[in-house]
Amino acid sequence: MTLRIRAALLAPLIAILPLAAQAADPPATPGAVVAQAPANAWHAIPAQDLLVMTIEGGKKLVIQLAPQFGPHHVANIRTLATAHWWDGTSINRVQENYVVQWGDATEKKPLPGGLAPTSPADYVQPLGAMKARLTRLPYPDPYAPATGFVDGWPVAMDGSGEGAGAWLPHCYGMIGVGRNMSPDAGTGAELYTVIGQAPRQLDRNIAVVGRIVEGMSALTSLPRGSGELGFYTEAERKLPIISVRLASDLPQAEQPHFQVMDTTSASFADYLRLRANRKDDFYDRPAGGVDLCNAPVPVRRAP
Amino acid sequence: MTLRIRAALLAPLIAILPLAAQAADPPATPGAVVAQAPANAWHAIPAQDLLVMTIEGGKKLVIQLAPQFGPHHVANIRTLATAHWWDGTSINRVQENYVVQWGDATEKKPLPGGLAPTSPADYVQPLGAMKARLTRLPYPDPYAPATGFVDGWPVAMDGSGEGAGAWLPHCYGMIGVGRNMSPDAGTGAELYTVIGQAPRQLDRNIAVVGRIVEGMSALTSLPRGSGELGFYTEAERKLPIISVRLASDLPQAEQPHFQVMDTTSASFADYLRLRANRKDDFYDRPAGGVDLCNAPVPVRRAP
Repeated sequence: MTLRIRAALLAPLIAILPLAAQAADPPATPGAVVAQAPANAWHAIPAQDLLVMTIEGGKKLVIQLAPQFGPHHVANIRTLATAHWWDGTSINRVQENYVVQWGDATEKKPLPGGLAPTSPADYVQPLGAMKARLTRLPYPDPYAPATGFVDGWPVAMDGSGEGAGAWLPHCYGMIGVGRNMSPDAGTGAELYTVIGQAPRQLDRNIAVVGRIVEGMSALTSLPRGSGELGFYTEAERKLPIISVRLASDLPQAEQPHFQVMDTTSASFADYLRLRANRKDDFYDRPAGGVDLCNAPVPVRRAP
Repeated sequence: MTLRIRAALLAPLIAILPLAAQAADPPATPGAVVAQAPANAWHAIPAQDLLVMTIEGGKKLVIQLAPQFGPHHVANIRTLATAHWWDGTSINRVQENYVVQWGDATEKKPLPGGLAPTSPADYVQPLGAMKARLTRLPYPDPYAPATGFVDGWPVAMDGSGEGAGAWLPHCYGMIGVGRNMSPDAGTGAELYTVIGQAPRQLDRNIAVVGRIVEGMSALTSLPRGSGELGFYTEAERKLPIISVRLASDLPQAEQPHFQVMDTTSASFADYLRLRANRKDDFYDRPAGGVDLCNAPVPVRRAP
């Protein structure tokens, strides 16, 4: 059926091969690698690193935090969630091919006590001991001298020694922290996610602290704001945020369970190789490379 | 006002500086370069290269065709538009962080006569005489040995001599031609546009024939399809396409007039330099590079 075949030519980022094909053949696509990855190629994401954001209408988004790349901001985000600070705030900005931003539109809501001070020094972390868990991406990057993956996260680096600085890139679905003019580095109360081509020029200018692992389309399909920079005008409705909770603050029965692929696993190496070299039923010309933001680390609900 | 200041940190791809600032200072941002570019830095887009697509509800999208990069496909797209072939078809697929696809969901609608044969040879064009109009992008690219801009289009190349092959990359908003399995190269009747991180692995595997220059958000804000690969299921509504017309087939009074920045102009050189090196009120750390798909060539309605 042509529609199905035509569909194949635009295979999804993660496609699932039929089980029969999986049993018969070594994986030929990134999706097949993910489908066939053994249980030990996956790591559970700790509940204290997951946020559940419920928006009006009941849709839920799940966010994974990256404490090792933004320790002060992530500490503040946990404090804000535990204080239920985002409840009753809203999604205030949807800018085409750029970002969706949420937080307190009134800018008058008092912040909870105990927030950690933040600074531009938080934007880049020492690679240090993480170097032992680094999987290099061996392709050139226009924004950084070195790139790769650590602990299930994409990373850009200003070198590759232990003394190098490492930071999370502004890839699609990554979450950054709004701030005022430098040297302010933001508290973590005002957040945004990338909904277009990776705006990597923001790297090392803003704290990147996590990513959306489920429910992204609830934000990307929102009407764009007609105000400056995609902010909703007074005449436009800001979608209310019902609640934001740390999974570890939820009753056991309500806690979501997610796993991320081990970026040091053989499965992830196969996934990267095939993301960079598509040569299957549809692809005739492998690219021979892949962009850091075009090899999203596989994340799934725990089976 | 913090919201406004916070907004500044997420400046749009093309921001307009206040006129006062423009008069006083050399442009410090890509948006300021665009705002201050002289009239001779812009080229009119010919009416036969513009398509106006009207969707249900009256929203109009404007598409620019690139005949020099897909001559057979563009000839077919003009034939299809002149035959009103897309009238009454629909938007059939919206896949998160990937593509929006439109055409004849029934796959039974007869094609007009006179369509040109197409082949994979159409995916790559000789750089040839275009080399004289090439502006190189001097930053590494993970997908191609050389990149740059020709005639207002981003281009990837397998070299930089006149004998090199050149192709349009799968950047956000670019338009590709759906096809069946290779060696089929598609007619041009089934089209898609990129709505996420550039899927450059599709380059040289599919014909890229143009870009959306106005109205993109009418597609990107559509509900995602819940079917396989983001296709709408029977239970989901496919947004009807009312009409698709070549601007040159419209009455003079209804023809839209667009201009694209001359990619050999001093203004475009300034724009690229600043896209790669943001250092202004908000940015502290210039990236020192920019991705081919993150320096969209400025296009505007004729003043």
